[in-house]
Amino acid sequence: MDRNRLTMLTDFYEITMANGYFQNGMKDKICYFDMFFRRVPDGGGFAILAGIEQVIEYLQNLSFTEEDIAFLRQKKLFSEEFLDYLKHFRFTCDVWAIPEGTPIFPGEPIVTVRGPAIEAQFIETMILLSINHQSLIATKTNRIVRAAQGRAVMEFGSRRAQGYDGAIYGARAAYISGCSATACTLCGSEMGIPVSGTMAHSWVQMFDDELSAFKAYASTYPNDCILLVDTYDTLHSGIPNAIKTFDEVLGPLGCRPKGIRIDSGDITYLSRKARKMLDDHGYTDCKIIASNSLDEYIIRDMILQGACVDSFGVGERLITAASSPVFGGVYKLVAVEQDGAVVPRIKISENVAKITNPCYKVPWRLYDKQTGKAIADVITLHDEVIDESKPYRLFDPEHIWKQKTVTDFRAVRLQRPLFKNGECVYERPSIEEIRRYCAEQLDTIWDEVKRFENPHTYYVDLSQALWDEKQRLLCERSSSANI
Amino acid sequence: MDRNRLTMLTDFYEITMANGYFQNGMKDKICYFDMFFRRVPDGGGFAILAGIEQVIEYLQNLSFTEEDIAFLRQKKLFSEEFLDYLKHFRFTCDVWAIPEGTPIFPGEPIVTVRGPAIEAQFIETMILLSINHQSLIATKTNRIVRAAQGRAVMEFGSRRAQGYDGAIYGARAAYISGCSATACTLCGSEMGIPVSGTMAHSWVQMFDDELSAFKAYASTYPNDCILLVDTYDTLHSGIPNAIKTFDEVLGPLGCRPKGIRIDSGDITYLSRKARKMLDDHGYTDCKIIASNSLDEYIIRDMILQGACVDSFGVGERLITAASSPVFGGVYKLVAVEQDGAVVPRIKISENVAKITNPCYKVPWRLYDKQTGKAIADVITLHDEVIDESKPYRLFDPEHIWKQKTVTDFRAVRLQRPLFKNGECVYERPSIEEIRRYCAEQLDTIWDEVKRFENPHTYYVDLSQALWDEKQRLLCERSSSANI
Repeated sequence: MDRNRLTMLTDFYEITMANGYFQNGMKDKICYFDMFFRRVPDGGGFAILAGIEQVIEYLQNLSFTEEDIAFLRQKKLFSEEFLDYLKHFRFTCDVWAIPEGTPIFPGEPIVTVRGPAIEAQFIETMILLSINHQSLIATKTNRIVRAAQGRAVMEFGSRRAQGYDGAIYGARAAYISGCSATACTLCGSEMGIPVSGTMAHSWVQMFDDELSAFKAYASTYPNDCILLVDTYDTLHSGIPNAIKTFDEVLGPLGCRPKGIRIDSGDITYLSRKARKMLDDHGYTDCKIIASNSLDEYIIRDMILQGACVDSFGVGERLITAASSPVFGGVYKLVAVEQDGAVVPRIKISENVAKITNPCYKVPWRLYDKQTGKAIADVITLHDEVIDESKPYRLFDPEHIWKQKTVTDFRAVRLQRPLFKNGECVYERPSIEEIRRYCAEQLDTIWDEVKRFENPHTYYVDLSQALWDEKQRLLCERSSSANI
Repeated sequence: MDRNRLTMLTDFYEITMANGYFQNGMKDKICYFDMFFRRVPDGGGFAILAGIEQVIEYLQNLSFTEEDIAFLRQKKLFSEEFLDYLKHFRFTCDVWAIPEGTPIFPGEPIVTVRGPAIEAQFIETMILLSINHQSLIATKTNRIVRAAQGRAVMEFGSRRAQGYDGAIYGARAAYISGCSATACTLCGSEMGIPVSGTMAHSWVQMFDDELSAFKAYASTYPNDCILLVDTYDTLHSGIPNAIKTFDEVLGPLGCRPKGIRIDSGDITYLSRKARKMLDDHGYTDCKIIASNSLDEYIIRDMILQGACVDSFGVGERLITAASSPVFGGVYKLVAVEQDGAVVPRIKISENVAKITNPCYKVPWRLYDKQTGKAIADVITLHDEVIDESKPYRLFDPEHIWKQKTVTDFRAVRLQRPLFKNGECVYERPSIEEIRRYCAEQLDTIWDEVKRFENPHTYYVDLSQALWDEKQRLLCERSSSANI
């Protein structure tokens, strides 16, 4: 299997629908899709967007091979004309997206696609797959990073990731939203993410005794000496042997130890004991690294209880977002072009939360000019402009009597153009730029939105014009429901 | 990034250790590693092994490019001799594994690797990553399949998977352990897994009204007509329009409808209403398919409450194993060769569950000859033989007074050789063979082990010789702990 070929990584119904559009003379019907999500994982106040870069790569490489077409042909569902169309397939859509690293909120269009029905429909699966996965991990990671209160968090989870890409792009998302490094070597060699790693328990076990193992490691890496001290007995063997190694191997070479790592037991207790033992021997500069099934809650508790930990290695609970492992982004038709006009489309549901926001539209973020903080997001029709020079009235789209008028704000369109007529027009930022941008944007979010329990609900409002249009469609549907 | 090149998908510490072994004259030291897991996800009674095929592919393609080596060189940690060794790296280990599709239990060696320290250490990350991921999904899927009690379960989760491989190999694992099909087209074209899919809500929305959308679909696929009936109003619009379409489009063509799909609302209630409406119009053969955040518990309840559902499309909760999204397989050093002898190694922990089983060893499964059911697994030293012709005494390795003597049993070695001196010697079964084997093996597991709540604990015992050796090592360690 050639893992670089991802065109066929699409739900089969995208292809049955594509053929259906083709057969029904709708292949060139222009339509508009929005990708958005409904709920922040872990009951958090916001998510962090990631995965756009991989969407771009996918869209740039969209093409069908002879083998793909032969596979589809033997399904005996598709017309030869359609298969011939796929053979000459060229992506021609316009695509807009919010930049990676941006804090995002439920209900707002993160990606908007405009283009011929077949194309805009076909790319649904990969847009969702890329963005759902990486946004999930970026969002979870930032919770852990916030809990660590400035201490470094390293991503250690490859072995427990859900597949190879789970490890690779998971580490990418983790780095964007605040991890300082990853253990995944490939992410270093292919994406330039800082990688780190020292030893496993097997290194210690490979030698006849722990002290020999430590001394051999210290001799090999005198300038990068971090010793794993819990293979046999942390306090009675691991730390004493580490100190002996620092004294006898590093000392004569004029080197200082980098750290010790504790990977089991009561790490809060052990870290305090370890700190004292290290300090008593003059190793106040030796860092203590903790790992072993950590997450934001355990880290918060460890710090509260006075753990002497300088950095955290976080594995399975970060790389799988174990506490809430699904990011529920969806991709919905919001408009079609008919006789030159853009006609809105809506999906109704008995579950009110599942009713979609119709229309070709754009999301804005309003920043308070005084504090620099984000006030609210507003979704407007695509051709509306929010005039910063005038007061702007915000209102809750469900409880419309809840209103607020803002002044002295900056209004920023959140989406940028990615593709114009199928050509990439986006200047792709480096991963370091994305990471920096993410940190800057996080500074614009109030602490009340960032807390873990009962975060403040950040407003994502609709403009009056969009709200009116949605109501009109709902009433229209409602009156024609009984058919 | 070339996604086919996975050699560097390894924790960085595997490489720092490898260089350490090299520098310390241990690169050719022969050692033995076991991969095993400690806990079944979701509190279940057993797991299902998957991911071996991908481990084989990885091991067959293990090599370092110039770029890999250049990347490592600039870390300024590794000797040129070591980098030169990597340049000419050839995999030479022996590898044994339990076949994919086998029900597996905590503590038993699933994969055993024998070979030079550097090689056997280096492959840790990918062995764990492949097997942890696919076994997680296979195990979760089979719970869902068991809950469905013979009704078909289709895998629909790509868009919510954790990365591309999460979707692709997740669908593979799901198929092995009982899903009947996947929505992931790539799994059809590349792995021969049955794919299925019909329409999304966007198909319905793309037309001016629901009836036109249904009629267009039915005309395009008269022999495969499954209609999604919940875009606007299931009972008052969706089902009536579906029946009208079956009458007016399929009827005149002499075709029968395949089914309807319900994706929101109270599916149990709606399915019963839908069944009656379909039956009343003579469509008793029209299947009802349910989807929307299903899992084993919801499916069990739906069936208990009399839902009229013929098959289930299961997405995010299957493809991420959402209720328990980590499979905690580990890879531990169990022995080294010294002066021609195999010397066992053990890892101690204050957490008793984390103490490893030492020694080069093999897992066996004892089957009752009368019932065909699995009685217990036994781990023995590698050169022990369980003689089927004699009674065999089993004992609980923790509570050794719990004993049982079995007779009239068949004893099967669970592991098969995969690699001999780095060459693949395994005749790889097709995915259909694996799926069939999995179903057969599941039949050997008692229902008591298969239930969701409080499953019976299946025994994984140690032979007397292995138990004695473990005790000897624990006592030896204990007496030398205070150093």
